[in-house]
Amino acid sequence: MKPSMSRVTRRNAMGLLGLVGASAIGAAAAPALPPPGAIALAAAPDHQHDGAAPAAAQDQDGPTADEMDAMHEAGVKAFPAQTKGLGGQPLPFTLDGDVKVFDLVCQVVPEWEFMPGKTVEAWTYNGVVPGPEIRVTEGNKVRVNVSNELPESTAVHWHGLMVPNTMDGVPFITQPPIKPGERFTYEFTIREGNAGSHMYHSHHNAAAQVTQGLLGPFIVEPKDPATRPAFDREYTLVLNDGPIGGFSLNGKGFPATRPLTAKKGEKVLIRYMNEGLMIHPMHLHGMPMTVIAQDGYLLPQPYRCDTLNIAPGQRFEAIVEATELGVWAFHCHILSHAESEHGMFGMVTAMIVEE
Amino acid sequence: MKPSMSRVTRRNAMGLLGLVGASAIGAAAAPALPPPGAIALAAAPDHQHDGAAPAAAQDQDGPTADEMDAMHEAGVKAFPAQTKGLGGQPLPFTLDGDVKVFDLVCQVVPEWEFMPGKTVEAWTYNGVVPGPEIRVTEGNKVRVNVSNELPESTAVHWHGLMVPNTMDGVPFITQPPIKPGERFTYEFTIREGNAGSHMYHSHHNAAAQVTQGLLGPFIVEPKDPATRPAFDREYTLVLNDGPIGGFSLNGKGFPATRPLTAKKGEKVLIRYMNEGLMIHPMHLHGMPMTVIAQDGYLLPQPYRCDTLNIAPGQRFEAIVEATELGVWAFHCHILSHAESEHGMFGMVTAMIVEE
Amino acid sequence: MKPSMSRVTRRNAMGLLGLVGASAIGAAAAPALPPPGAIALAAAPDHQHDGAAPAAAQDQDGPTADEMDAMHEAGVKAFPAQTKGLGGQPLPFTLDGDVKVFDLVCQVVPEWEFMPGKTVEAWTYNGVVPGPEIRVTEGNKVRVNVSNELPESTAVHWHGLMVPNTMDGVPFITQPPIKPGERFTYEFTIREGNAGSHMYHSHHNAAAQVTQGLLGPFIVEPKDPATRPAFDREYTLVLNDGPIGGFSLNGKGFPATRPLTAKKGEKVLIRYMNEGLMIHPMHLHGMPMTVIAQDGYLLPQPYRCDTLNIAPGQRFEAIVEATELGVWAFHCHILSHAESEHGMFGMVTAMIVEE
Repeated sequence: MKPSMSRVTRRNAMGLLGLVGASAIGAAAAPALPPPGAIALAAAPDHQHDGAAPAAAQDQDGPTADEMDAMHEAGVKAFPAQTKGLGGQPLPFTLDGDVKVFDLVCQVVPEWEFMPGKTVEAWTYNGVVPGPEIRVTEGNKVRVNVSNELPESTAVHWHGLMVPNTMDGVPFITQPPIKPGERFTYEFTIREGNAGSHMYHSHHNAAAQVTQGLLGPFIVEPKDPATRPAFDREYTLVLNDGPIGGFSLNGKGFPATRPLTAKKGEKVLIRYMNEGLMIHPMHLHGMPMTVIAQDGYLLPQPYRCDTLNIAPGQRFEAIVEATELGVWAFHCHILSHAESEHGMFGMVTAMIVEE
Repeated sequence: MKPSMSRVTRRNAMGLLGLVGASAIGAAAAPALPPPGAIALAAAPDHQHDGAAPAAAQDQDGPTADEMDAMHEAGVKAFPAQTKGLGGQPLPFTLDGDVKVFDLVCQVVPEWEFMPGKTVEAWTYNGVVPGPEIRVTEGNKVRVNVSNELPESTAVHWHGLMVPNTMDGVPFITQPPIKPGERFTYEFTIREGNAGSHMYHSHHNAAAQVTQGLLGPFIVEPKDPATRPAFDREYTLVLNDGPIGGFSLNGKGFPATRPLTAKKGEKVLIRYMNEGLMIHPMHLHGMPMTVIAQDGYLLPQPYRCDTLNIAPGQRFEAIVEATELGVWAFHCHILSHAESEHGMFGMVTAMIVEE
Repeated sequence: MKPSMSRVTRRNAMGLLGLVGASAIGAAAAPALPPPGAIALAAAPDHQHDGAAPAAAQDQDGPTADEMDAMHEAGVKAFPAQTKGLGGQPLPFTLDGDVKVFDLVCQVVPEWEFMPGKTVEAWTYNGVVPGPEIRVTEGNKVRVNVSNELPESTAVHWHGLMVPNTMDGVPFITQPPIKPGERFTYEFTIREGNAGSHMYHSHHNAAAQVTQGLLGPFIVEPKDPATRPAFDREYTLVLNDGPIGGFSLNGKGFPATRPLTAKKGEKVLIRYMNEGLMIHPMHLHGMPMTVIAQDGYLLPQPYRCDTLNIAPGQRFEAIVEATELGVWAFHCHILSHAESEHGMFGMVTAMIVEE
């Protein structure tokens, strides 16, 4: 007896893979999609799956076993589900001399669709959750114009960046709050040694404003790429557990999360950023991660794991060698953040490794 | 004034040590029990303990100081309390050619005794919580026949193992669910480099099924033992915080937990596995631990600590040099997981170091 | 457009800095205070802060934007607020031959002021939360006389210290409880290799007694200072989340917390100790920390971060190079432990770096 590759239905493969091309957040280039059927899914060969057939109905209030399975299946088949709005995409800048100028508008989005058909009022940068990705390089001069169209005051903290004190974004300590209708300009030079995965978010009424969506990735490239481990492809995962999408990855809950795709043999950099109020131990199936940086700083000794615990405010960078073909579950291992009897939800996505 | 060894009552020593021989989970060999009285307990010499005697009664709803002390004392004297059922014991296998064949039956246990006289309905592998320990060696070919006698569908994920995608155990992504009454066969070869402490557990309706008991240790021995640090004795601690025993170590709450015993000078390997929904910082009194592996992977630089924080899904391996004689408390340092005014409970055990 | 230093009002600077001299817990020497106005606070130059002025009133139950800002401002201006009682100060000892003798009295404080005007009943060592700092050196002989004036029994555990089993402080396992009105004497020699940041706390009804205040820092200096990284100044931060002050740093919630001050260029050692029931990822703005020790043990490879996650029972030592001038927010990054719509509270303080 030897396992063989499973059958795959066209519907499965389309549902799981059809939207992959649009899904990479921060990926340098969208991968070629595998042809339908190239990824084996869901149905085992008969010799591995036998026995008495019909599921015993549960004489309880909850769903029967078959009803439960149907809900689980529907969720997986819907993945990656299309929803309106996609956060974390690169923010264009203009140049004022040698200064890179970015614009952020703090604004309410009345209906942020975090799961198919489910919406919530979000407080956003530029209308998306997470806010757009700001990406610059060590040594760059950066200016960010922030306009506040919210009904509350706000301020932006550059979490992880070494900036002058007056640019640190803490109302009444380093600046006055940016009142509704007002603007504030942040300006600083990215320090050498400050490369890595950072964040920007509100630092005013922050327990509410950040969890409602005022957060975004701020990535600093090294001036000399040789100073950091090489990789072929990268993804950012902003973790949140607030009212926006409940348990979410990049502002969406499963099945509206985006898969991470890679070609076999590629090195995939994953940038974890926890903007929530709880820890989230992220577990990747199939392949270990090598953790190379914490809060942007390279670890003197990278270590391997398959479940990486990320606390609020922390960022980790990990590299996965995509050696194993297939669709691999990738989720928070606080299981109640990822699955209920109605199926997987929240902090669940997949890494898809193709030939 | 100099401390001297405390008196010990025979009843204390018997209560605390009488069941040690049967308690080691995964211990290579049961240690010889110390003679009653060899471990000093509970009563201090008079010159260290004096002053006004009778405890002031508390004029409140809660217990008086004396009532509280009596409850605490009763708990400690009952330790290690005998209860029905012991999980995590080695699972025998048969050989089919060069394939090691294991059998797991998913079944409901209506009354799992997690504390003396306290039972709960458990969902189990082979009738015990944690499920039996599967232990193999790098390079081994492994087959696991899983029969589902539960009222719900299920599937088994080999948490930490690098298996072919079709064997990964995630319904509708890598296989159909195993419906009630059905069987499924998992088969894979243990990869070189995948040694260490892993787990197997349900990946279907998992927030419920795992916390109800569908979990077990999966340990991979290195092909070449010289590749990992040496030890004299080992214990596995599966942490859980679900409905089964509430806060539990290996499916039992104090005083029904089992102590870890060692002879002075031995190196004790502890395999921590968190199958719960919360972090558990495990604190060993008396001696530091040296953390050598995370999620099975050897750390490039082991580090020492006395309180090791384990998040859901994580495994750590730590070595304790049993240099200090005595009975040492060993518990989760989220104190509300370990003690109430009624005494110690839940995630509490002891390490006993004997001459 | 270039940021310039902000204006500062005298009231701001006085409010923020006026009490600094009395605030250092465990600081080797109080720093000279900066002159009022030397630290730039709160008001941005006009060219950075413009736009439509009056904040839109929120037509809701909550405060308006202006009301919210006023509450935030009042909190910051009150910092560091004076309150009655200061814990964590060095505990004097007497010498009995070559034994350092300390006295601890467990006593109820009916009104522990954890925020200005807010009090709670605390259970304390010597009337303060945290208990006084015990500081000794490797190789020292130590005796601690503990008197129990509480309405409950208690016992003291020396968390992190390698002591003889009879001195470990766990009722019914290593000693009888110290009943109300009784005394108990602990005596042990500090082991070589046991230097670092440790704690003492109740180990009886501990979930209640510790969170109510029966906790304190126990610091062991190395016999040879050259064995540990050098620093110029040090602070201890005891984290708690119990009924005493709710989310607190050294027994006080913001704005009654004390800032950490340093002169530019100094190396500041921070000793984190978590005595609560939750994790607390502490985030320092402006400068990274280098983590050098865990649970007292030097890390073989120190690492840098800006957000350090500390679990209950853990201690970390980190060194901050105070390279950046200004007042830097320093807080738990579980934002709900640090800020509400009424302003910052709880686990918030600041690091102030002066010329």
